Amino acid sequence: MSKQALEYLQQNRENLLNKLNEFLAIPSVSTDSRHKDDVVQAGNFVADYLKEIGFQSVELQETPGHPLVYGEWLEAEGAPTVLLYGHYDVQPADPLELWDSEPFKPEIRNGRIYARGASDDKGQTFMHLAVFEAFMKTEGRLPINVKVCIEGEEEIGSKHLYQVLEDKLDQYKADFAMISDSGMVEAGQPTILYGLKGFTGLEFTVTGPNRDVHSGIYGGAVKNPAMAMAHMIASLKNEDEQVTVPGFYDGIEELDAEERRLMNESPGENYSESIGIMEETPEKGYTAKEHTMARPTLEINGMYSGYQGEGAKTIIPSTATAKISCRLAPGQEPDVVQKLIVDHLHHVVPKGVKLDVTPLPLSGKAYKIDPNHELLQKAAQSYSDAFEKEAVFVRLGGSIPVVEMIDRLFGIPVVLLGFGTPEDNLHSPNESFPLESFDKGMEVLVNYLEKLAE
Amino acid sequence: MSKQALEYLQQNRENLLNKLNEFLAIPSVSTDSRHKDDVVQAGNFVADYLKEIGFQSVELQETPGHPLVYGEWLEAEGAPTVLLYGHYDVQPADPLELWDSEPFKPEIRNGRIYARGASDDKGQTFMHLAVFEAFMKTEGRLPINVKVCIEGEEEIGSKHLYQVLEDKLDQYKADFAMISDSGMVEAGQPTILYGLKGFTGLEFTVTGPNRDVHSGIYGGAVKNPAMAMAHMIASLKNEDEQVTVPGFYDGIEELDAEERRLMNESPGENYSESIGIMEETPEKGYTAKEHTMARPTLEINGMYSGYQGEGAKTIIPSTATAKISCRLAPGQEPDVVQKLIVDHLHHVVPKGVKLDVTPLPLSGKAYKIDPNHELLQKAAQSYSDAFEKEAVFVRLGGSIPVVEMIDRLFGIPVVLLGFGTPEDNLHSPNESFPLESFDKGMEVLVNYLEKLAE
Repeated sequence: MSKQALEYLQQNRENLLNKLNEFLAIPSVSTDSRHKDDVVQAGNFVADYLKEIGFQSVELQETPGHPLVYGEWLEAEGAPTVLLYGHYDVQPADPLELWDSEPFKPEIRNGRIYARGASDDKGQTFMHLAVFEAFMKTEGRLPINVKVCIEGEEEIGSKHLYQVLEDKLDQYKADFAMISDSGMVEAGQPTILYGLKGFTGLEFTVTGPNRDVHSGIYGGAVKNPAMAMAHMIASLKNEDEQVTVPGFYDGIEELDAEERRLMNESPGENYSESIGIMEETPEKGYTAKEHTMARPTLEINGMYSGYQGEGAKTIIPSTATAKISCRLAPGQEPDVVQKLIVDHLHHVVPKGVKLDVTPLPLSGKAYKIDPNHELLQKAAQSYSDAFEKEAVFVRLGGSIPVVEMIDRLFGIPVVLLGFGTPEDNLHSPNESFPLESFDKGMEVLVNYLEKLAE
Repeated sequence: MSKQALEYLQQNRENLLNKLNEFLAIPSVSTDSRHKDDVVQAGNFVADYLKEIGFQSVELQETPGHPLVYGEWLEAEGAPTVLLYGHYDVQPADPLELWDSEPFKPEIRNGRIYARGASDDKGQTFMHLAVFEAFMKTEGRLPINVKVCIEGEEEIGSKHLYQVLEDKLDQYKADFAMISDSGMVEAGQPTILYGLKGFTGLEFTVTGPNRDVHSGIYGGAVKNPAMAMAHMIASLKNEDEQVTVPGFYDGIEELDAEERRLMNESPGENYSESIGIMEETPEKGYTAKEHTMARPTLEINGMYSGYQGEGAKTIIPSTATAKISCRLAPGQEPDVVQKLIVDHLHHVVPKGVKLDVTPLPLSGKAYKIDPNHELLQKAAQSYSDAFEKEAVFVRLGGSIPVVEMIDRLFGIPVVLLGFGTPEDNLHSPNESFPLESFDKGMEVLVNYLEKLAE
């Protein structure tokens, strides 16, 4: 274990936290065009940092959307080459009124850093860069060769990443990839993710009358688009949480008893404490752990129609809109599932209203790797050395489309080194990241880079 | 016919229109607490006008909400006394971006006055006052005794009107009532309304997790409140436009063949031209005319949940809310229907979410009067003299809870003298009122007051 690198991280902890806060203070919300310049600023922050550390060929690679940051350090002759992926963009911060401190003014309290992106993914990406800095400042070199790819469009589905990687296959080529954009099953519990869900989504609008109209005068002649939308949405899933779109489950492998046992034995979150729900409502025939880790989902992310203000407004709305997304299991093809849903909506839309569907530009297949793979076993050991606790192996309900993208383009294994915790409020108000994960996580990374050089 | 009063109206047309514009310019949106002062200002406008005309005992009667304007002129000895009801409050103007001119900067174009309230109900209330002014200025008296009751809470369900009227039964007592807060089946077609629908409504919120949560991490464990709401709403009405809340239709008299014939023969609106719908979708077994005029409705007025911004946000929303209202047929009790819906919602709410229901403070029974009543026949003649066209007799899908309220409190007939047209965009952007209705409508009122004195 590199004592020097670890000591460097401890001695420079305050400087590093200040630097992280600078990064978190940039409101790099990729989905919102008003934040376009902020996103570029966050990209420049990463590029400048890489140059400072001593990376070469550092550049912002332009895309039709937000740029990609590339950098490399390739002087570890004979050692393997890792591709580090991360993202410097973040989710929108609204509803703002639910934050206890400003989302883009990082604040440390209760042993946590509070800010949008503290966990997902600026904080975790930053840890890798800090570890590279520690090695370079103390040993003048990294244990293995490193290529860095930090993008600005993860929260909008990595729209242009695939094209860039495909165009520059040689530049990005590596022996394996590592990503820290996930979490541990509970704080302090080393967790190796060996599976992720895929993703697809769409938005649809139902239009009735060409404007909001008086419910007394037109009620009885006109199809209400909000009512039509409710019927259409209700036709997507039944009350047993089974998706009722024909063909939705095609191609999914049934979970075997052993995998079910592992899932159900893994430590989990107490939902009534963490998010205040009264009871779990998984798909019929599965536990909540099985459903969140391994079964596909279909969720309404947002919907709106008509009057939303104070009091009443007795209208039939002109339009109703819903945003829908799915998390997919291995075996499901994102494009196929999206088309099944679109076809189903066209099939069930009632007469008297018009349906417009906008497919979301986000998409990705699920990913699964053998938990006994050497790269994962080394990661598990690096974790347990730092956290002094055995690692558990789990699958996650979240989607990191880039994992499947890297797998498809390069055919290399992807190692997920997550340091987040269930209390991080990802995508929610009061996102935060524990200082314990920051400190011990960097120790894990130091250990891992050295083990990879062996 | 009082030539003098009619001439006065013609000669003072520009002044009267300017005065109406002053009235329309006050944004007296009763549902929005930010407009509280504007609502009072509109009430004062009416009171000041009544004093100017020569009404006595004019006062703003305070309520826990917005005030009521009272005034009287009772010097027509031996003649009957009419209670004139109107309202000076208006619906919200949003969505503002869909207006071609400012909602509270009245503008005349294409022979119409464009402004929120131009038709509903400031414009029509104003016509009565102008006619009173014309009689007083020319003959020094009105043909019959008049009591005036103009309220500021019609668009929020006349919340406090009933209490005030009940407390001041003697003050408001009259032989019959007249109201201009409705329309004609088409521009220039004299229309006598002999029936109105009742009203009830409610708002409900479904709550799942205590904040918006990540759809990947929690999807599969947590009931999605937007999905739950869709199922609940879909359970209220089937695709044949039949309300499926048990007991909803109880007590309604079936329409007889003669009334169906009259309804279907009455001139109607071409919905594809007026509001751009592709086809009518009435309740199974009824025509659109029958449903809008005489059958009850259940409509979603608004609904919202989760993320509504640009792009995607992959969350499970914390809450979902819907605003629902019903138009009721004779025989339905508003409170009973409201309770049936609330009970039904509690019955169908799925496990895993919490239901909160807020009944709307709006309510009123349907109203029906014999179309052969002398007061209606005189009204029909007054119309046909002014418009040079025979009147048609119809029922309307809209609700004027005050009609039923007056019927219940005073047991007197209510005459509905509507001058609006289907093109008025009530409750919608670009509300307007035709100048033809303004001019000929005042002629109708002059005729009617004189006929009532006979």
